[in-house]
Amino acid sequence: MSTSYDALAARFARANRVDEASGWLHWDQSVTMPPGGASARAEQLAALAEISHELIASDITGDLLAKAEAEGASSAEDPWRAANFREMQRNYLMTTAIPADLVGALSRAKNLSETAWRVARPASDFALALPAFTELVKLVREEASALGEALGLSPYNALLEQYDPGRRIADIEPVFDDLRTFLGDTIPEIVERQKTWGEGRAIKAPVAAQREAAQGLLKSIGFDFDHGRLDDSLHPFSTGTPDDARITARWNPDDALTGMMAVLHEAGHAAYTRGQPLDWRGQPVGDDAGMAVHESQSLSYEMQAGRTAAMSRYLAKLLSDAAGADITGEAVSQSLLKVSPGYIRVDADEATYPLHVILRFELEQALISGELAPADLPAAWNQRVVESLALDPPDDRNGCLQDIHWYDGAFGYFPTYTLGAMAAAQLFRAASDSIGADDLHGALAKGDYAPLTAWMRDNVHGMGRIYPSSNDLLQAATGAPLSSDAFKAHIKARYLS
Amino acid sequence: MSTSYDALAARFARANRVDEASGWLHWDQSVTMPPGGASARAEQLAALAEISHELIASDITGDLLAKAEAEGASSAEDPWRAANFREMQRNYLMTTAIPADLVGALSRAKNLSETAWRVARPASDFALALPAFTELVKLVREEASALGEALGLSPYNALLEQYDPGRRIADIEPVFDDLRTFLGDTIPEIVERQKTWGEGRAIKAPVAAQREAAQGLLKSIGFDFDHGRLDDSLHPFSTGTPDDARITARWNPDDALTGMMAVLHEAGHAAYTRGQPLDWRGQPVGDDAGMAVHESQSLSYEMQAGRTAAMSRYLAKLLSDAAGADITGEAVSQSLLKVSPGYIRVDADEATYPLHVILRFELEQALISGELAPADLPAAWNQRVVESLALDPPDDRNGCLQDIHWYDGAFGYFPTYTLGAMAAAQLFRAASDSIGADDLHGALAKGDYAPLTAWMRDNVHGMGRIYPSSNDLLQAATGAPLSSDAFKAHIKARYLS
Repeated sequence: MSTSYDALAARFARANRVDEASGWLHWDQSVTMPPGGASARAEQLAALAEISHELIASDITGDLLAKAEAEGASSAEDPWRAANFREMQRNYLMTTAIPADLVGALSRAKNLSETAWRVARPASDFALALPAFTELVKLVREEASALGEALGLSPYNALLEQYDPGRRIADIEPVFDDLRTFLGDTIPEIVERQKTWGEGRAIKAPVAAQREAAQGLLKSIGFDFDHGRLDDSLHPFSTGTPDDARITARWNPDDALTGMMAVLHEAGHAAYTRGQPLDWRGQPVGDDAGMAVHESQSLSYEMQAGRTAAMSRYLAKLLSDAAGADITGEAVSQSLLKVSPGYIRVDADEATYPLHVILRFELEQALISGELAPADLPAAWNQRVVESLALDPPDDRNGCLQDIHWYDGAFGYFPTYTLGAMAAAQLFRAASDSIGADDLHGALAKGDYAPLTAWMRDNVHGMGRIYPSSNDLLQAATGAPLSSDAFKAHIKARYLS
Repeated sequence: MSTSYDALAARFARANRVDEASGWLHWDQSVTMPPGGASARAEQLAALAEISHELIASDITGDLLAKAEAEGASSAEDPWRAANFREMQRNYLMTTAIPADLVGALSRAKNLSETAWRVARPASDFALALPAFTELVKLVREEASALGEALGLSPYNALLEQYDPGRRIADIEPVFDDLRTFLGDTIPEIVERQKTWGEGRAIKAPVAAQREAAQGLLKSIGFDFDHGRLDDSLHPFSTGTPDDARITARWNPDDALTGMMAVLHEAGHAAYTRGQPLDWRGQPVGDDAGMAVHESQSLSYEMQAGRTAAMSRYLAKLLSDAAGADITGEAVSQSLLKVSPGYIRVDADEATYPLHVILRFELEQALISGELAPADLPAAWNQRVVESLALDPPDDRNGCLQDIHWYDGAFGYFPTYTLGAMAAAQLFRAASDSIGADDLHGALAKGDYAPLTAWMRDNVHGMGRIYPSSNDLLQAATGAPLSSDAFKAHIKARYLS
């Protein structure tokens, strides 16, 4: 007998397929689309976003949810089914909070703003991005207010809830304050220790050799090219589905490791996507557990595993072979572990990285509250960089134009990078305890991530969204909720022991 | 005041955006998707096909059409608006003829069959394609019956109507019979004349040089890379929208001209797509005038213009420069104009090409009537090839597996290639009369298609679907409906004068 729950499952599956289609149009836009296609692509994406929104926000969905509740869907014996119903209710609540015309306007504004950013960033000219960005910020503020009203949250907390279920400003501020203090004490100590290393010695390699090395790296870590791709794009990203998880990278001939690390980072995201529970494909509970957990996977790959001594030696060999050069593990290690404040978040070492996130966390709260006008962003940005990193950005490309996120409408997203870094440290420690440190590092010495990925698949990827919050997932996987303890211990062990 | 017509226009625009999204997912599937993504892609495409179908087939559309008719939409003063309403009615009639569950099943079956074909063709093993193909043929026969019932046409005529509005078996048979007779007399005469040329001398060039030459060729003919791309795929195709019209090609190091001609062919399709009337973007009347007219554009580019003496000299120079070789215009010309019966339709010369189409036209009628079972296709195919081309295909890759069309569900499509060849001859003659033969060929000597494209844009591309049939369009553009006269005159002039 078909139940209201079954009808809901079919409805959510259809919306998911439409969302997957949008994902591929986004991929195409960033990787292959010629520039002339931009405005039509915005219209195509807006139509798909509206259709998906209407499927979930429809009164039919609301009626079915009420009926399924009466039929006992919340107390289903199968915990996955009960969790799926909980996520359906959550999605409905979050989706109905935003009017359909605002959804369409946001989709268009995101595309136009992102397109303007793609011109403004290389030109280092914030003014080129400002008109579309101003319109986008206005619409995101409307979105945040509508969402906050429905969820009983402040506008910015409502945006956080979109990316990391259960996360609030009030959780983050004390942790970020603690981290800022810890890093304020620790970074000078690390810099002092690394004095003998001299300048961070970048590893040079031709772009073709880097691409070849990246293919080898992906094969050794277990990336399946039958179910994924590696392409170039302006800003590295990953997107896809459990059967087709793609990543992109960019290459710098003067610094091969930036590209390699971006590949590992995005491959961590892709591994999560690939490992989602297939039994729940296309259902809300089959989705990932939010962006903080997603980032814990990319950072487990890139920071925790990727910068071990074992992987440094492996990367040295890989790049030596591809470039026909003689690169030592020590040179790679020193390049990867060199702590040195810089302008660019994605190039930052793991010790200064949280400082980049903290300034964005503060600035985006000000943009959403209206305290900071979009036109005033470059000045406010540069001032914060001076305060927190003691550096003065030379131009907007090295300042507020460096990241795509805001220009693509993602506010409340940046904190998940540092929350994810803390979760990565916590999960990697638990994985190492379970696998055994010798076995884990023995595999990494061969560039083999299979043991790590298998543990993550059992404890993170395959759990989908069965837990109501990322803290519940971490509690189950590591025995403790999110804290900065493992991250701080990791920084001390790697840099000061 | 908003009218029922305006509501219809919004509805058709949304369906068009969903269809455009499907088009890009198809492009990705053929050009970039890893094999593991196939079954999920089929689900995504099925969902989009169902959504588009529901938008048009909805009772809401039917009600709005009735109201708009009562409001006088059919007799709108603006002929474009009246034609748009006519095309809306036609789309609604054709769409409602096919039940939604059959639409979804067809979309899935097409994808699975196409995927099987992608394996079966290189393996030259029809058995690998047969299960999915059998299911697809069954569903296409259901589609043809349903469509025929709604339109008052036989099943196969209903399929023809999908690709070339107004075209019937009864029009085609006498023309094809006439052509078969003409070619039966003419081909031996041409072969005799070309005896002194020896074997068709293929022009060899490394694939990288061919890709470079193709980029140069596209630039010279006026292909705009800000609004299009050239990629590789198993079977050359073009897809896109007026702002983003993409083509693909494949390359054979032993025969560079096949790739160049495929590029010209697909560029002709892309020029049509690019030239569609922007004022009617996304509306039914803004669409192309069917596949016979579409093919007239690709063949104008590839056959009519692309094999002139002027273009042969230009291509010789382009390939010589790219490959660092010394290739003469005469060698290119003899290679392009060599008439020689072969197995492969896409490699056929323009004189024997219609014979490939005629055998497909006959076989697909038998498949749709049920007279021929899918399992019996290879034997029936080979027998027809013996009869019409006096050749016995050595394997299915050179036989019934060579073309994607049937395996992708396209029946009733093949005749449009030869109808298009006749239209191309007719349109090219009219264009030459209007531009002046000297100016047209003078431009072609520089690889410049701008005068030809401008004439086609005024007389074909920009007319969208304002005419109810392709014959009406040809009447307006050339002063006569479709006939084989111009094609036969062209063959005689090019090969026997």
